[in-house]
Amino acid sequence: MTRFALNQATTKHWPLPELAAGCAEAGVSFAGLWREDIQAYGVAEAAGLMRDHGLTVTTLCRSGFFQEAGWLDENRRAIDEAAGVGAPVLVLVSGGLPPGSRDIDAARAHVGDAIGELVPHARAAGVRLAIEPLHPMYASDRCVVSTLKQALDLAAPHPAEAVGVCLDTYHLWWDDDVWAQIARAGREDRIACFQVADWLTPLPAGVLVGRGLPGTGCVELRRFREAVDATGYAGPIEVEVFNEEVWARPGKEILHEAIAGVRDHVL
Amino acid sequence: MTRFALNQATTKHWPLPELAAGCAEAGVSFAGLWREDIQAYGVAEAAGLMRDHGLTVTTLCRSGFFQEAGWLDENRRAIDEAAGVGAPVLVLVSGGLPPGSRDIDAARAHVGDAIGELVPHARAAGVRLAIEPLHPMYASDRCVVSTLKQALDLAAPHPAEAVGVCLDTYHLWWDDDVWAQIARAGREDRIACFQVADWLTPLPAGVLVGRGLPGTGCVELRRFREAVDATGYAGPIEVEVFNEEVWARPGKEILHEAIAGVRDHVL
Repeated sequence: MTRFALNQATTKHWPLPELAAGCAEAGVSFAGLWREDIQAYGVAEAAGLMRDHGLTVTTLCRSGFFQEAGWLDENRRAIDEAAGVGAPVLVLVSGGLPPGSRDIDAARAHVGDAIGELVPHARAAGVRLAIEPLHPMYASDRCVVSTLKQALDLAAPHPAEAVGVCLDTYHLWWDDDVWAQIARAGREDRIACFQVADWLTPLPAGVLVGRGLPGTGCVELRRFREAVDATGYAGPIEVEVFNEEVWARPGKEILHEAIAGVRDHVL
Repeated sequence: MTRFALNQATTKHWPLPELAAGCAEAGVSFAGLWREDIQAYGVAEAAGLMRDHGLTVTTLCRSGFFQEAGWLDENRRAIDEAAGVGAPVLVLVSGGLPPGSRDIDAARAHVGDAIGELVPHARAAGVRLAIEPLHPMYASDRCVVSTLKQALDLAAPHPAEAVGVCLDTYHLWWDDDVWAQIARAGREDRIACFQVADWLTPLPAGVLVGRGLPGTGCVELRRFREAVDATGYAGPIEVEVFNEEVWARPGKEILHEAIAGVRDHVL
């Protein structure tokens, strides 16, 4: 279980100090953090809290949203926050179509341009950008990058140490091309993070908060982990679940279920 | 507007005789029907009703659901109903994962086997099977066929006159490979029907009834129609929208909005 990472979103209502103490108590040494939370707590303070509990920050979630006004400054701030909190990876969710637009090709091209503009700042800060493909059900309003192939194509022009991809089982499980693309991601040294969540139906309204803890849904999680490991990746396995019913429970209880889910269904 | 087709699901609460009269009055000559409705009305009676109003039946929706017990008999019945109502095309929605299964590859392979078993009956009945890829958000519970490429690969072993595909903009719009696959579908003579619906967000709970009438969402509908036409397809353009708010309005009003939507956003 040394590879287990808790993404903070999984225990949404757990205050950061309790999360840090709870992870330390459970023997967890990796945590992925969210911008809103470290902004509220203080970036330097969050870095200190993690350090004091022997926790390594895996990822900072998230920036991107390149269709929004002010995206360049906002993403630079996010890079600085990632560096400040000690996250080696900043996860990028591209954003959807601009208001009123139907031109998804143009939106996808803009994502490529935007990442190109961010790379120098990210390299200077020592932060790797991770392009995250989201499930196609988010293509219009949240992320026009819908497949791992698209994410890898967007990363391709840039050095691998500057731009990678974030693999999340929830978003990729339906894609029969994903196994070939995971192998490609390994060959091209692009795997910046590996997140696991399970797929549940029926989907809730808005489709944002219907993910399942590992083992509660229909995703072949172990097959994903084996495919990712087969590329040589040996980094954290990060549980990132958005689910109202999960969030209603105590953070410690969620953490233990997430650990058990990874042990029984991913490893 | 000679190519306009009304799929009955768009005007869910419009009784079949009123739909037939309303289409005739509006100068519409194509309609796609649903099994539940023609079963309730009587298959032969529905065929007569369509004929009496100068309507040609384009498609019968729908069968498939190959993960369910009794799928073979049920699909044979559906083929007979299509023949009985004069529909040249029976739309197949494959179904999702079997209960408790996580093996999507096996489920997809089973769809191929099932279609193979149906082809002789379909050919004897003079009904073309149309494999419909559904949006990946339905992959677990409704349709493991998620892309046009998968549908065409499943159709490939069979004669084109026996097995085609159903192209629906709602399900395919996010896919950057769809343009190449539409061209392939044309080359391989597989386009059995062309349905249009628009993509709206936020998605409703269950994600079934959130489609928009043409022009109300973000899909490049005209680009789809041009791509389909470029293959040589000159058949019906069928509006199939599932939407609670649309359904709450009078059938005649919905029909006129659908016609206007096709005129202004598809043609």
